[in-house]
Amino acid sequence: MSAAIVIGAGDATGGAIARAFAAKGLVAVPVRRTADALAPLAAQIEADGNACVPIACDARDEDAMVALFDRVEAEIGPCEVAVFNIGANVPSPIRDETARKYRKIWELTALAGFLTGREAARRMVPRGRGSILFTGATASLRGGAGFAAFAGGKHALRALAQSMARELGPLGVHVAHVVVDGAIDTAFIRDTFPERYAMKADDGILNPDSIAAIFTMLHDQPRDAWTHELDLRPWSEKW
Amino acid sequence: MSAAIVIGAGDATGGAIARAFAAKGLVAVPVRRTADALAPLAAQIEADGNACVPIACDARDEDAMVALFDRVEAEIGPCEVAVFNIGANVPSPIRDETARKYRKIWELTALAGFLTGREAARRMVPRGRGSILFTGATASLRGGAGFAAFAGGKHALRALAQSMARELGPLGVHVAHVVVDGAIDTAFIRDTFPERYAMKADDGILNPDSIAAIFTMLHDQPRDAWTHELDLRPWSEKW
Amino acid sequence: MSAAIVIGAGDATGGAIARAFAAKGLVAVPVRRTADALAPLAAQIEADGNACVPIACDARDEDAMVALFDRVEAEIGPCEVAVFNIGANVPSPIRDETARKYRKIWELTALAGFLTGREAARRMVPRGRGSILFTGATASLRGGAGFAAFAGGKHALRALAQSMARELGPLGVHVAHVVVDGAIDTAFIRDTFPERYAMKADDGILNPDSIAAIFTMLHDQPRDAWTHELDLRPWSEKW
Amino acid sequence: MSAAIVIGAGDATGGAIARAFAAKGLVAVPVRRTADALAPLAAQIEADGNACVPIACDARDEDAMVALFDRVEAEIGPCEVAVFNIGANVPSPIRDETARKYRKIWELTALAGFLTGREAARRMVPRGRGSILFTGATASLRGGAGFAAFAGGKHALRALAQSMARELGPLGVHVAHVVVDGAIDTAFIRDTFPERYAMKADDGILNPDSIAAIFTMLHDQPRDAWTHELDLRPWSEKW
Repeated sequence: MSAAIVIGAGDATGGAIARAFAAKGLVAVPVRRTADALAPLAAQIEADGNACVPIACDARDEDAMVALFDRVEAEIGPCEVAVFNIGANVPSPIRDETARKYRKIWELTALAGFLTGREAARRMVPRGRGSILFTGATASLRGGAGFAAFAGGKHALRALAQSMARELGPLGVHVAHVVVDGAIDTAFIRDTFPERYAMKADDGILNPDSIAAIFTMLHDQPRDAWTHELDLRPWSEKW
Repeated sequence: MSAAIVIGAGDATGGAIARAFAAKGLVAVPVRRTADALAPLAAQIEADGNACVPIACDARDEDAMVALFDRVEAEIGPCEVAVFNIGANVPSPIRDETARKYRKIWELTALAGFLTGREAARRMVPRGRGSILFTGATASLRGGAGFAAFAGGKHALRALAQSMARELGPLGVHVAHVVVDGAIDTAFIRDTFPERYAMKADDGILNPDSIAAIFTMLHDQPRDAWTHELDLRPWSEKW
Repeated sequence: MSAAIVIGAGDATGGAIARAFAAKGLVAVPVRRTADALAPLAAQIEADGNACVPIACDARDEDAMVALFDRVEAEIGPCEVAVFNIGANVPSPIRDETARKYRKIWELTALAGFLTGREAARRMVPRGRGSILFTGATASLRGGAGFAAFAGGKHALRALAQSMARELGPLGVHVAHVVVDGAIDTAFIRDTFPERYAMKADDGILNPDSIAAIFTMLHDQPRDAWTHELDLRPWSEKW
Repeated sequence: MSAAIVIGAGDATGGAIARAFAAKGLVAVPVRRTADALAPLAAQIEADGNACVPIACDARDEDAMVALFDRVEAEIGPCEVAVFNIGANVPSPIRDETARKYRKIWELTALAGFLTGREAARRMVPRGRGSILFTGATASLRGGAGFAAFAGGKHALRALAQSMARELGPLGVHVAHVVVDGAIDTAFIRDTFPERYAMKADDGILNPDSIAAIFTMLHDQPRDAWTHELDLRPWSEKW
């Protein structure tokens, strides 16, 4: 059995990605900080007749992440796919931003991505295969008023993805970065931005399953034609 | 019946794209300047049991391009996909570059792309659907010594794709730009760069069929999650 | 005597650049299609006690541009600075854009820039010194709805500047590209966008002299620290 | 008296920037972790007849940075310029990178930049004037093999600069980012890369004084034409 580890599988996108890789025959390993929140996702994947091993882990904790990958490789099989899908944005005017929050957003967005990428690379490179996939955002490409912390973390994550792609591509490991530019169909958008959510009727917000299809497509690309970066947005989105 | 017009179907990539859309049930309309060169491609598509209507047309000729799209829509059916795949690079040091060549490369690379995009848009927008897909290159993203003309044409084509995407997305038409960064498995590479071609054995050059699969994937994306730009390169390519 | 050729010196920016180089002791050679329009600028430069030789020339005409540079070098002295400052934007929805206008905007924006750059390079490279400076715009960096033609020309010009910089830098010629992002204090803005022009009172539009100061700064940079690209915008501009 | 705080004034570049602002009549406040290393710089500035108040401070320490800005404003006068010039690169293959080093490079490169920018903004915004200037590098723009940590920190710093510029520009504070792309004339380059250092004879490495001249130019720009980002490299540098 092969595993697809999805770090940050609590939200709609990570859950859809885990389901999609499970549907392709990999054992989905959705990961988030608390186990309880993973139970419905695991139940859903198993109800589909696919395999899921949810694991609780704080992705900012180096020892815990090493242990997570060790456990997956020992108990399930080779990790063929690692997805990093955590991102935390709490905008603040620069003068109000605290060092504590600036650091925390970086830890969740970039440090946890680094640990995911490094642990995946350590296991995939000796096998000369595997995919390491990162979720980006508009803030990965440009800063904005109030976005110093989030754009900083997301820029750092993109630099990580690009650095890893250049280093690991020739070693057989595919590293890609998906820039999601638009609102996603999540409970957060539904509850916080009802007007935006209403655009769902007209395909105006991203369906997590559409995003997930891109992640599996990237993993399936033949190595003569790998994509490192692409964007995703609804047809009606201004950009 | 629906049509997939592929402008610049003489080379390996355009041919593979035409075949791929034909295999999905569209009538492939491969286009290049001379009809003779299209015969083997048409024969191959028909041997696969798919439909192909090759048409000779100079893509820089406005009247001819209008007539081409008119004919396809009248004789075959709605053009659901338009692919622009022409590009011509003959590097020169800037001091040796002629206005004649600088202009010709722009006409082949950008003007012909504009005519393709405009004629496709005119027919797709009233229907509120369709895909217009452009082939880019590394020179789409940055200039280089000796590349003033080719990079100029390719930058202009990328600006066209981005301008059209922003205008036509909200009208239901998907515009995308594929940056191919690496040598492709073509007769030109085989004959001119044999050392590079030898990398084919190790998947070190792009297979046209792998590129074509990305073009059909883009056309198939649901409109809640459209990609505007992505890159493609072999795993072992330096970048 | 040394010359500073400024192609596109009809508008406020080109005129200010010509004045600024004249004030530094070079003979200003402002160039535009018709001689009459240059007379006030020449009179102003001479009234400042500086030298100016206005020349009428269609910058899209290869022979005329060769003759222009020949005449300057023969009659004035070495061309130490060449500035290309033409740009023409007439937005159109893509479906309404004509091949004629698409081509004309490219000729004014990119082809004329190529001829300027090539003729300057031919004379500067043998001397191993000189500056070739291009005026860019927001459309140099991204496309926009209705901007296919202008963004195409401006992207091509940026590709030219970057290609030339990479080729000519090591030959001692400094090539730079100035991205002007904001309204400039011109008669056009005054007459067409009075509300925007009113921002002048608060420094909300660019003063041509401020732009010109950047062009002379670029020419004066020591060769151990050359800038290739920079942006300019008013403090209050949204971007 | 007005102050120019230069965070990271230990190396050649920061020292040159401090000297340059002192020469323009500001009190230079060079800052680095240990006071001893600042003594020669202070002596040099004073020997030039200019004012310098060196201060030792760990730029990653939030309380210390608040105290630093408080002290400067209380004892010297308004901080008109804040320069952030720290960067630390120790490349590692991704599989060998430690979380400890990845974090430390981010703290030095991005967190310290955030603290500098925030403290400067807090004091400049109420006055509606001032310049906050960041030193970037090639790694600010793209990742590279072995550069995940440094490119991550530098990308985050660029996102900070861009976010702050968009937020603070309309409040009267000029935020700019200088991308230095090439070797600088430092003891480190002299001792570690003697072949590269030999290029100094031919202006092939950046003179810190040339870099410093750009920082004072940015501070002096009139607010109708501010530059947010520019690059600097020697004429002979490959890029």
